[in-house]
Amino acid sequence: MIPFGAGFSLEGNFSQPYSGICIDFTLMDKILAFHPDDMDVVVQPGIIWADLNTQIESSGLFAPMDPSVAATVGGMVSTNCSGPYAFRYGTMKDWVLNLTVVLADGRVIKTRRRPRKTSAGYNLTSLFVGAEGTLGIVTEVTLKLAPIPEDSSVAVVPFVSIAEAANAATALIRSGIPIAAMGITDEVQMKILNLYGSAGVRKRRWEEKPTLFLRFAGTTQGIQSDISKVKEVVRPFNVPFVLPKSKAEEKAFWAASKEALFSMVKIRPEGMEMWSTDVAVPISRLAEIIEWSKRECGNRKLKIFATVLGQVGDGNFHLAMFYNPRNQKQKEAVEKFVKEMMDMALEMGGTVSGQHGIGIGKKDYLRDELGPETIGLMRELKRTVDPKWIMNPGKVFD
Amino acid sequence: MIPFGAGFSLEGNFSQPYSGICIDFTLMDKILAFHPDDMDVVVQPGIIWADLNTQIESSGLFAPMDPSVAATVGGMVSTNCSGPYAFRYGTMKDWVLNLTVVLADGRVIKTRRRPRKTSAGYNLTSLFVGAEGTLGIVTEVTLKLAPIPEDSSVAVVPFVSIAEAANAATALIRSGIPIAAMGITDEVQMKILNLYGSAGVRKRRWEEKPTLFLRFAGTTQGIQSDISKVKEVVRPFNVPFVLPKSKAEEKAFWAASKEALFSMVKIRPEGMEMWSTDVAVPISRLAEIIEWSKRECGNRKLKIFATVLGQVGDGNFHLAMFYNPRNQKQKEAVEKFVKEMMDMALEMGGTVSGQHGIGIGKKDYLRDELGPETIGLMRELKRTVDPKWIMNPGKVFD
Repeated sequence: MIPFGAGFSLEGNFSQPYSGICIDFTLMDKILAFHPDDMDVVVQPGIIWADLNTQIESSGLFAPMDPSVAATVGGMVSTNCSGPYAFRYGTMKDWVLNLTVVLADGRVIKTRRRPRKTSAGYNLTSLFVGAEGTLGIVTEVTLKLAPIPEDSSVAVVPFVSIAEAANAATALIRSGIPIAAMGITDEVQMKILNLYGSAGVRKRRWEEKPTLFLRFAGTTQGIQSDISKVKEVVRPFNVPFVLPKSKAEEKAFWAASKEALFSMVKIRPEGMEMWSTDVAVPISRLAEIIEWSKRECGNRKLKIFATVLGQVGDGNFHLAMFYNPRNQKQKEAVEKFVKEMMDMALEMGGTVSGQHGIGIGKKDYLRDELGPETIGLMRELKRTVDPKWIMNPGKVFD
Repeated sequence: MIPFGAGFSLEGNFSQPYSGICIDFTLMDKILAFHPDDMDVVVQPGIIWADLNTQIESSGLFAPMDPSVAATVGGMVSTNCSGPYAFRYGTMKDWVLNLTVVLADGRVIKTRRRPRKTSAGYNLTSLFVGAEGTLGIVTEVTLKLAPIPEDSSVAVVPFVSIAEAANAATALIRSGIPIAAMGITDEVQMKILNLYGSAGVRKRRWEEKPTLFLRFAGTTQGIQSDISKVKEVVRPFNVPFVLPKSKAEEKAFWAASKEALFSMVKIRPEGMEMWSTDVAVPISRLAEIIEWSKRECGNRKLKIFATVLGQVGDGNFHLAMFYNPRNQKQKEAVEKFVKEMMDMALEMGGTVSGQHGIGIGKKDYLRDELGPETIGLMRELKRTVDPKWIMNPGKVFD
């Protein structure tokens, strides 16, 4: 798959633009078949997930992945995307039933049929999901759908420090309470929301503190029960627990959480670039690496403006930084810091990419993460499927 | 992986014993590392999942896959197993974080590291999960764990016909109520439970009707809410809705559901063989294929004793039949019927194996299911990883 509008594939989009075959997928944005009784839908890769969900909404079903609002299904497949809902619903690979893929030699394959479960042959679907376009061009995607929950709510919980917020997140993960989504944003991000959030978001004055956004979904009664349990878990942190007073306020709370990264994009000063990177670690190390990243990045004497946010439910977080690409020293400092952050993630047994993918920028680190044998096997698979190395060349590995 | 004690891999175990390299994995049954704070565990493939869960129980965590009680983690990996809990928790592939695999040329690879989420390189883990031992020998498995739910309950709902039971199951799947597990058993199976169930199960006189077993898990209050919602959905079917009066009774209800298939094994008359097969279809066709299978199998004038059961939450069900291997006509009738059932599943857009795998018996049907291009790509991958075709030869495809 050629990653186009590649969702959260910021490693590619911002810092290292994708090269490779140029295909205009924006036309391939149709629903090809909708099977509400089977709870699945067949789409072309250019469709935006939010548009898909709007088009099928009246059926009571939805595709639960929720990356950036502009992400297309094809890009989401290509990066095995996730989003805040990944905490409850898993990542993209869990929602793709089958793919139609054009291989490098022109063969067209369908990875498997439409039943929700199968043990028939190798899992080709999962091989293409997350391959960043290096194994073939995806032309059709069959997505599993979930029933839209009866009710929802959002809680906003500000903490005194990012470490406390991350520790509370870990305690909530461990509790088993079926929270639908969990996001963390630092105090910088909250300030940006106060200054530059959308009209609905700015109506409210947000506490400029590291904050957990918790989303609940299920039956009205079930949600009340979940919220009580969550309150018990966060009680030792002695923090306010803000619940919306109306559905409109609930919407604004969630919009705030979703706007976080994009407010950054909006406020980017003329001439500055944004570098957004992500790593994931085993969850016991999450608080430590988030705190380390903020401290270390703040320590640089190069005025790097940086914020932390992320879908912490799976031990994953993002760091977004502004830098001036014409200021060589600043650019180098950002590059150096991203490398140190990846080293730290690896040292903790983590991964250099929780959801952005490898692209060009993280190729060297993929080798460090997986070792030569594992990379060797991946390269052999690549050579088998694409012997002339024509599918999105230069990405993932050389 | 060489499938040994291969969980639900009945296509292999009962009808076509596995050949290939003979390795005694029963010694490789240790927990190598337990990380309760990261919610994962590293095990050897010979460990039985139920023993693993007993050993880690005091941590409040468990591995949620629940196939046959005798299944080893290695077998579960090999077949991408599922069980009743798959409805809420997904299948084995969703719980394997990484695998250590010995390849055919002696290389040892680790598919990835331990974080719960990653977008770093190809998804090798999912390539080996479900490969039925044909790509390498798995020597270590890191499993993601889930928190043990606070409370649980079980409901038993007898229906007038298998079609009604299957239709109710479809309505429940569509409802989005977070039922933990959903099993269907026919009237024959319920009779067997009355006659041959374990002591606890036989204490109760079961209605000998097609029955749905529903398991609930979560907070005590959340479960009450889920049960009320489920009652609403099944009300139009005008059926009894039996809830346990005590925790002991709850245990007996669930034991009954789990014993279903194994009571069959227990009562197998001397000289008879059991053939257990499974298919999965898009969920809107589930009632139809279950009804068709029971009717067609019953129509045979060859005294085939058969029952239907299954984890219907994903459109998957099982048919278990007794036949006399020395009665050539009866054996042929069973074989013919299994083929017709697979044809029917394919005609409905389904798969010839929902969870048993392909083994030897379903190789021809895999070709029909996926087509020559897709099988061709699978074979090319196999040839790349195992050029001398020495890993569990003869399985999945030739």
